[in-house]
Amino acid sequence: MRKRDDRRSLSEIGERSIIEIVKKHLEPIPTSPVPFGDDVVAVTIKGKRVAVLKTDMLVGKTDVPEGMSLRQAARKAVVMNVSDFAAKGAVPSAVLVSLGLPRTFSAKDVEEIAEGLNMGAREYGAYVVGGDTSEAYDLIIAVSLYGTALKSKLMLRSGAKPGDVVAVTGLFGKPAAGLRLLSKNVKLASKIRNALIDSVFMPHARLKEGLALGECGAVSASIDSSDGLAWSLHELTRMSGIGFIIDRVPLAEEARRFAETCHVDALELALYGGEEYELVVTVKPEKWHETEAAVETVDGRLLPIGVVTEQKHIVLDMDGKKRLIEPRGWEHFKSRP
Amino acid sequence: MRKRDDRRSLSEIGERSIIEIVKKHLEPIPTSPVPFGDDVVAVTIKGKRVAVLKTDMLVGKTDVPEGMSLRQAARKAVVMNVSDFAAKGAVPSAVLVSLGLPRTFSAKDVEEIAEGLNMGAREYGAYVVGGDTSEAYDLIIAVSLYGTALKSKLMLRSGAKPGDVVAVTGLFGKPAAGLRLLSKNVKLASKIRNALIDSVFMPHARLKEGLALGECGAVSASIDSSDGLAWSLHELTRMSGIGFIIDRVPLAEEARRFAETCHVDALELALYGGEEYELVVTVKPEKWHETEAAVETVDGRLLPIGVVTEQKHIVLDMDGKKRLIEPRGWEHFKSRP
Repeated sequence: MRKRDDRRSLSEIGERSIIEIVKKHLEPIPTSPVPFGDDVVAVTIKGKRVAVLKTDMLVGKTDVPEGMSLRQAARKAVVMNVSDFAAKGAVPSAVLVSLGLPRTFSAKDVEEIAEGLNMGAREYGAYVVGGDTSEAYDLIIAVSLYGTALKSKLMLRSGAKPGDVVAVTGLFGKPAAGLRLLSKNVKLASKIRNALIDSVFMPHARLKEGLALGECGAVSASIDSSDGLAWSLHELTRMSGIGFIIDRVPLAEEARRFAETCHVDALELALYGGEEYELVVTVKPEKWHETEAAVETVDGRLLPIGVVTEQKHIVLDMDGKKRLIEPRGWEHFKSRP
Repeated sequence: MRKRDDRRSLSEIGERSIIEIVKKHLEPIPTSPVPFGDDVVAVTIKGKRVAVLKTDMLVGKTDVPEGMSLRQAARKAVVMNVSDFAAKGAVPSAVLVSLGLPRTFSAKDVEEIAEGLNMGAREYGAYVVGGDTSEAYDLIIAVSLYGTALKSKLMLRSGAKPGDVVAVTGLFGKPAAGLRLLSKNVKLASKIRNALIDSVFMPHARLKEGLALGECGAVSASIDSSDGLAWSLHELTRMSGIGFIIDRVPLAEEARRFAETCHVDALELALYGGEEYELVVTVKPEKWHETEAAVETVDGRLLPIGVVTEQKHIVLDMDGKKRLIEPRGWEHFKSRP
């Protein structure tokens, strides 16, 4: 019996269901070093090396907040792809770009975009090597990233084991606060305001941390936090079949000040914000110290936030209170910018 | 002295100038087996093998004619990328897709798109391995293709030498006629009508021909004809620094019938149409017969259309008349669908 046409709109079903629908209709590649649905795709080249690939699209309407320049938008389009490479421990080498540009854009606009693309790539040692332009109604920057990795060093979303330490590479909450600042008039010291806005307009991928983590071989699972810390933790539980007790959420001082001034919940900013490019990793406990040291060697830091559990919940255990961390974060189609 | 901001709009300057502007702002990758501006990008893996990459975006507004289904549009998005691999003699293995979807699309629409993507990949032995979805105002299907090739077998746009035979892999004019049919009421036998429309909705990439041509090592330059035969010839002259005398333009019988019925110039359809995925190659004359035979071995054909000259013009020498073939074809931003 043929099933009835599914007429539900995309805003009803949301991004995750869309991806499930697509996946259901694809014939899977026979062998793949990385499971479908992880941050990147990998194809075996020969022997121990794999080609690592990623594509992600920046859309003017949803991904470019008011006040962000085209240079910044183009740079961000590259950085958000690099962040996924960072989470897997893969070295990015070549950037390809499909540009969709409105006819009303000027030659100057194209220059700014090209500068931003180049900047994003060069910051991480990669080069923009080619692409294509088309006419579109809205700015579209579809970046594809290519690089290589040793198969044995790739850090997947699956692999976390009970007892592992869960850790992050930095502080949370700034982009969520920065985005709210952009649409609201808030009295804040200009230094704090600038730091918050900067975190939105000039995000950084934790590539050197990711590569150091991949090298030391003690990471059992890894993901970036681009859809929010809570969402990343839920993805790790789903792909690794485990849970977490989280006893610390590292909050940026600027986000704390914003939350105080605006009387909003700082934890909400740190857990459910998104547009944040820290890495969230699980580390074998016996290797914690050497892993922490490896990240410090590249001037990064690794902050423990809890422990992996067998129970598949994510429990926030702070200030003598236990709560569940909800599976929410940014979701295309459902969320509204 | 800082130059004045270039405020010309993209519809004034057109796609080719946009690409030049982008290129000017990119730091070039130190070593690349393929020059910037060729159909694909290649990155040295190790030794003699290169990773081959291509990205091209299908946009609803300009690339999906009325009557084309979403399944066909998604399939075409893959096929147009495969065609560039075919022209270079590279084997496609993995497809990544960045989808931009309007919120009003249904789950059924997504199923059709996924089916079309899978179909396009599997027809050419590749697999859709991953991607990403975003919300957009218009349908955007940005396909990235990954594969490998032997560096020594890659067929570039540069390399044609005076005396080489220029040849194509099939007949021209059907998609140009088919596109006109879609917007016009023309009386034609349904078999002819169907063949013309089919060439627009279900294009085919000449992958097996391209791989056979690459294998035999006698091709000095190669390109596909997606922007029209005239445009492809001009690209080869530009990149190889040569010219052509063309003494034959292989015209599809259905295009000839359409031209007769509508009193349009059949040559115009064949030379300046575009959305056509034949290969245009130059072949060393002493290797012509074995090259022709190699393409016939894979059930393809290679039709000679002229000869490479030192003079950098493209002369059409047919029916006792000599004319220049103009450098026009489909150009995003300037052309109107």
